[in-house]
Amino acid sequence: MSDERKYVEELSDVEDDFDRWYVEVVRRAELADESPVRGTRVVRPYGFALWENMQAELDRRIKETGVQNAYFPLFIPQSMLAREAEHVEGFAPEVAWVTRGGNKELEEPWAVRPTSEAIICPMYARWVQSYRDLPILINQWNSVVRWEERPRAFLRSLEFLWQEGHTAHATLEEAEERTRLMLEVYRDFVETELAVPVIPGRKTESEKFAGALRTYTIEAMMGGKKWALQSGTSHNLGDHFGRVFGIEFLDRNGERRYAFNTSWGLSFRMVGAVIMVHGDDRGLKLPPRVAPIQVVIVPIWRKESEREAVEAAVDRVRDALLPVARVFVDRRDDKTPGWKFNEWELKGVPVRLEIGPRDVANDQVTLVRRDTHEKQAISITDLAGRITEILDDIQANLFAAASRMLAENTVEIDSYDVLKERVAANAGFSRAYWCGSEECEDRVKAETKATIRCIPFDQPEAPGRCLVCGEAAQQQVIWARAY
Amino acid sequence: MSDERKYVEELSDVEDDFDRWYVEVVRRAELADESPVRGTRVVRPYGFALWENMQAELDRRIKETGVQNAYFPLFIPQSMLAREAEHVEGFAPEVAWVTRGGNKELEEPWAVRPTSEAIICPMYARWVQSYRDLPILINQWNSVVRWEERPRAFLRSLEFLWQEGHTAHATLEEAEERTRLMLEVYRDFVETELAVPVIPGRKTESEKFAGALRTYTIEAMMGGKKWALQSGTSHNLGDHFGRVFGIEFLDRNGERRYAFNTSWGLSFRMVGAVIMVHGDDRGLKLPPRVAPIQVVIVPIWRKESEREAVEAAVDRVRDALLPVARVFVDRRDDKTPGWKFNEWELKGVPVRLEIGPRDVANDQVTLVRRDTHEKQAISITDLAGRITEILDDIQANLFAAASRMLAENTVEIDSYDVLKERVAANAGFSRAYWCGSEECEDRVKAETKATIRCIPFDQPEAPGRCLVCGEAAQQQVIWARAY
Ligand SMILES: [Zn+2]
Ligand SMILES: [Zn+2]
Repeated sequence: MSDERKYVEELSDVEDDFDRWYVEVVRRAELADESPVRGTRVVRPYGFALWENMQAELDRRIKETGVQNAYFPLFIPQSMLAREAEHVEGFAPEVAWVTRGGNKELEEPWAVRPTSEAIICPMYARWVQSYRDLPILINQWNSVVRWEERPRAFLRSLEFLWQEGHTAHATLEEAEERTRLMLEVYRDFVETELAVPVIPGRKTESEKFAGALRTYTIEAMMGGKKWALQSGTSHNLGDHFGRVFGIEFLDRNGERRYAFNTSWGLSFRMVGAVIMVHGDDRGLKLPPRVAPIQVVIVPIWRKESEREAVEAAVDRVRDALLPVARVFVDRRDDKTPGWKFNEWELKGVPVRLEIGPRDVANDQVTLVRRDTHEKQAISITDLAGRITEILDDIQANLFAAASRMLAENTVEIDSYDVLKERVAANAGFSRAYWCGSEECEDRVKAETKATIRCIPFDQPEAPGRCLVCGEAAQQQVIWARAY
Repeated sequence: MSDERKYVEELSDVEDDFDRWYVEVVRRAELADESPVRGTRVVRPYGFALWENMQAELDRRIKETGVQNAYFPLFIPQSMLAREAEHVEGFAPEVAWVTRGGNKELEEPWAVRPTSEAIICPMYARWVQSYRDLPILINQWNSVVRWEERPRAFLRSLEFLWQEGHTAHATLEEAEERTRLMLEVYRDFVETELAVPVIPGRKTESEKFAGALRTYTIEAMMGGKKWALQSGTSHNLGDHFGRVFGIEFLDRNGERRYAFNTSWGLSFRMVGAVIMVHGDDRGLKLPPRVAPIQVVIVPIWRKESEREAVEAAVDRVRDALLPVARVFVDRRDDKTPGWKFNEWELKGVPVRLEIGPRDVANDQVTLVRRDTHEKQAISITDLAGRITEILDDIQANLFAAASRMLAENTVEIDSYDVLKERVAANAGFSRAYWCGSEECEDRVKAETKATIRCIPFDQPEAPGRCLVCGEAAQQQVIWARAY
């Protein structure tokens, strides 16, 4: 593709055609690409570096709660996956099956893991004998496969990258505590590192994880169509899996009991969230804390005589910033500065430094923020001291903007007609009382395609009336369409 | 399992029954466990932490050479895997095939990747148009599947964890340079971090990677039977894959050319190497640089009245060491100190600190080295300052011991009868002249089960006579049995 053409075509308008904008920005910013394997995507280095930064930070937080990483097999024999009835019913339709290996037909098909409860729980059954062996706190980073014909980079694909945590406990209370703790780890991670505000809450019975006692979730609002993205879930599995897989132990009193389990996962769809929450007509806008490149330096000169002085200043600035920021110098000689500005804006780099002959003369750089487009001259001597504060300010500014978007597009309503209008108009989240019946839930879903994203933890004091049937309702829920 | 019984049974003798010792130490040190999925193993947290430390260090070194990480799909459609003839011939017999997905039969089976050349090269063909798009330097950390009925934890399993690097270049010379560079990265990593000395060299035609122009390897000598372990390989693929997958570009002169590729991998079999090279009758002996726990603290008291002072000293020591070492305090109250000493020796922790009432009284700790069993009293004040030096000394000592083992069990020979005896006696590596014919190579393999591990880079000046046929030979090779 000709480089010049690439920027002559503008990106699709964010508001006009958000879905198309998403596809274009993913491709042009080189986050991911099509793949010859139907249903999958290739994650390119720039997209993967973003995910690696997320991984490093989330991994650190998970480990701080006492969890260790491990690795369990990719394959799960069919009979093992089938042991927990609800679980297999939920996942079987999406499974990829290995039926041949080493030139032989297998006696029993092997599932490529859609999630690992059914292979991890049998191991826990071997490792747990006594209450002293509990809790078990294990996480793994891997890829899982769920059949998907219409992939969308990061958001929905046949294979996706995630972490899945699996714990076993002596009591239901302890399992509940862990389930909520991990949801809080997710909330803090997503809000602090990705600058994406979320609404934490519980899933309804019909939306919970297959086989779980209860599922908690954090739900974020995406830009454009203001749809919801389920951003991390944490499941209290009760003792369902403990009973089915025989995770038995002797408690302090010598009584035989079944262990209680939790599982929780967060996937690279959060790369999609970062794109959709912060992006604009110029492309990505990456939160500094996870941006692969935080500061890009573009050297500028016209005459060969200016070159040496500019390059010396560029080196000096880069060396000063390296200890405090992830810096990249764009030295390509076949691209104009203007072209580079566009490209790094498209790629969402938080800070651009332009260094030209006039900057050199004044011992300064021209700093341009990706979030505000604000331009300022900063003396080279002050730069290293100020850059951290500027990056922090950009991070805070992105979070504030996303929080405003969430607040402005979340409305408390008490009329089903209004819900229908809001959903049809892509107007955002609607908060309303719900009686708790699956019938009302199903009806709204069938009639509007909106679902209950969660029953938020944050609830009003007073009860109300169900938006759909008008019956007494104890709690409010968030209705929205979701990716 | 009863804890007491666990240590009443001694480990099998390293020299007597090395294979059994290996299995026991892997299980008892909780590095890995059996799995309900035939051919696979579960990597437990202690084993995975060891692998994570290796990963972090190797990843850093790989990135320092300009390589970026990315992620390509797990599945490769059959027709795509079949495009490079030698490649598919080499891997097809070991492939696991997905034939059903989402409740439908697939039109074409998908291979679970045995290695990723066949899915990565088609992407490079899309990304490369001009010499300016080269080189492409990408690595990925993933798991691959090669059918295996007789697994051996870390060394041989149906699914294994590794990194696979894939690069594309404008010239064969540049590809060769990269191939050798990555072998050197592996050599330095394995020797420096794992304290395992290796012999770098080239594979023979019959031992090279399926589809490669040439394969380089580092070969290590394991303890016990003194067999070889191929520890990392780096392949110059020439333009075979470039031609087959159409990685075409316009060079500086506007001429259409095919790109040259390399690939290189190192797997978690290096966890196996660490076990087998350094272990002894008491269990593991982990190199401090990758040990999950570098220093274990065992508090000791008999009377409850001693407890408080001991615990205060333990906390003080731990806090002092945390900034300089990976420390763990074994506070379990249902195990005796003696039991704990055995367990941490089994788990190979480089340094044990015993803190009892007498230590407290003298403001000291009793430090025991895992490598020499040497015991010394060290004042608490000096400890943090000395621990780094002690850990470095242990690392150096392990490397020196392994280097002696390699040197003492590598012999230059000029008689095929001696080779047969040495192989039968598990006497180590035999270095001998080889004429270069596949016939001699095959004959030795058939008659002794030894193979040419590599043609070492380090060669004598003078030519000689082939060990097998007596013909003129330009080079020496290393003969050995291998895992
Ligand atoms: Zn209702
Ligand atoms: Zn010969």
